[in-house]
Amino acid sequence: MQGNKIGGEEAIIQEYLAPLAAGYPGALGLTDDCATITPTPGHDLVVKTDPVASGIHFFADDPPEDIGWKALAVNVSDLAAKAAVPVAYLMALSFPEAPSRTWMERFAKGLAEAQLAFGMHLVGGDTDRRPGPVTISITVIGEVPAGTMVRRAAARSGDLVYVSGVLGAAATGLALLKSPELARRLGLDADEIAALVARFRRPQPRLGLRDALRRHASAAMDLSDGLAKDLDRMCRASGCGADVRLAAVPMLPATVKAVADDPSFIRNVVAAGDDYEVLATVPADDAAAFEAAARASAPDIPVSCIGIIVSRPGVALLAADGRPLTLERSGWDHF
Amino acid sequence: MQGNKIGGEEAIIQEYLAPLAAGYPGALGLTDDCATITPTPGHDLVVKTDPVASGIHFFADDPPEDIGWKALAVNVSDLAAKAAVPVAYLMALSFPEAPSRTWMERFAKGLAEAQLAFGMHLVGGDTDRRPGPVTISITVIGEVPAGTMVRRAAARSGDLVYVSGVLGAAATGLALLKSPELARRLGLDADEIAALVARFRRPQPRLGLRDALRRHASAAMDLSDGLAKDLDRMCRASGCGADVRLAAVPMLPATVKAVADDPSFIRNVVAAGDDYEVLATVPADDAAAFEAAARASAPDIPVSCIGIIVSRPGVALLAADGRPLTLERSGWDHF
Repeated sequence: MQGNKIGGEEAIIQEYLAPLAAGYPGALGLTDDCATITPTPGHDLVVKTDPVASGIHFFADDPPEDIGWKALAVNVSDLAAKAAVPVAYLMALSFPEAPSRTWMERFAKGLAEAQLAFGMHLVGGDTDRRPGPVTISITVIGEVPAGTMVRRAAARSGDLVYVSGVLGAAATGLALLKSPELARRLGLDADEIAALVARFRRPQPRLGLRDALRRHASAAMDLSDGLAKDLDRMCRASGCGADVRLAAVPMLPATVKAVADDPSFIRNVVAAGDDYEVLATVPADDAAAFEAAARASAPDIPVSCIGIIVSRPGVALLAADGRPLTLERSGWDHF
Repeated sequence: MQGNKIGGEEAIIQEYLAPLAAGYPGALGLTDDCATITPTPGHDLVVKTDPVASGIHFFADDPPEDIGWKALAVNVSDLAAKAAVPVAYLMALSFPEAPSRTWMERFAKGLAEAQLAFGMHLVGGDTDRRPGPVTISITVIGEVPAGTMVRRAAARSGDLVYVSGVLGAAATGLALLKSPELARRLGLDADEIAALVARFRRPQPRLGLRDALRRHASAAMDLSDGLAKDLDRMCRASGCGADVRLAAVPMLPATVKAVADDPSFIRNVVAAGDDYEVLATVPADDAAAFEAAARASAPDIPVSCIGIIVSRPGVALLAADGRPLTLERSGWDHF
């Protein structure tokens, strides 16, 4: 397999990563120590870093294209929720042993697809060999007209709570990956399973909601650690609480089936990570305009009102009979 | 030791990291998902990421203050060589197990000292638990007047080659850490040893050379992987070569003694990493002005002319008798 071995750090950079920087002059072809970004006049930069690691955010044997896509997508998802336009990213790669050429080629292909979809370029990075899981540490840079970044801490009592897309789809895909038995029980065919697994492996940052969020949202963030935990974070930061109607939480048919099969699966809808949908609050008077703006600019991304912000602290997840759902563990924490 | 345990990701962020963001409005107290940076009009941003890991860039039992300092300093060193003003940084931390409160407190103290010295703030990050070494992935953001970033690829035949400070000091400190016997042989006392170890643990980005570099350098980069390798990179990028006079390479007295003790120690001067000095090329006509500007703005940072750029490819390291030094291994590569 000599021919499949990679020469060294500079070979990885020049063969696989430099093409991802082509077309962005400030990246200098990744041949300099730093890159330059020339901001659009009158704009703020919006920055975020969220690394992913093998065994935690993806599986070592996931298709390398999907690993590349997801590593960038989970970061861009934050930009999307903030109504920012993606511009550039830096990436530090760490491998316990040199990856094969095939792996790097496929990983870079996934990144290329993602950055094309999101409208951004790689501008710098680092490649290191060290023990532990394969780790991809991406820092994304986006921009917004000065002062218009949508905040997390600005939800107000009476605002309606919205989510984009569906919740629990990635968790359903992950459950299917772990249990072929579940697929049989839910009566899913191979195409349906593949589509659900793709929800886990290829999250879609909701960039199409940008204008609707900027014009109408009082607060927004992306859902990465589960609705219960992330909405709680938003409420704590904003000094308020929320009532969520579980019946209004949008789900794919397969997720609905999984909950029917086992009611405790609802925890995978509200408390599992990896949704990468937008959670937003909108003043009630603005709700119709928000929905119309979302429909106009992103007809393929539904937005659903799932509840209301209240002045009482805490997030209540209310079943159809009005009883609150209690969760032993309200979401994903890294310690 | 219950009292010394850390609660979770949010506790680490709010107790130890949020104070590092205080005073930078766009960091939003690290309570949002993203931060905003408002660029100075007419400026470019200069960005860089260079993670450090335990066992590779520092030792697990190094003082945590020094680990924090070094993690930021190695990144800011790149900004310094590019004549950029540091603005902000993002930091992703990864621990195999939750750090103690004492460790986090001391680590944050080192970062606080470093960011105060460099004039920047923490604006965002992430904290994760995963196997492998403790890893600190920092992305720095600086700025320069539009179009003035000093490049790596712009050295020209006839330019003089300069380095700041001294070379091999960090490598001497590291050698002393590894061999107490060496300290005895060189006749160094405890204070001298501590000062040399500090060169390894607390690199000093040469921010004071900014104006001199911006006005006079044709090309510049920081020395992180050793003069031989980094100068070779600069020459390859610039399509030229260089002749370096080893006798002109600035060294601390202890390093001179180490070379006298064992002539092969010269490899630690030209081919070991961790110098974090600036390597710059200056057109010969500008040399006097460059030296004067450096002296005026940074009297404590000497700059030394060590050679000349030539049109022939390759870097020749010439001993006093004119013979070239050959290195089996010309510097640090990560694969």
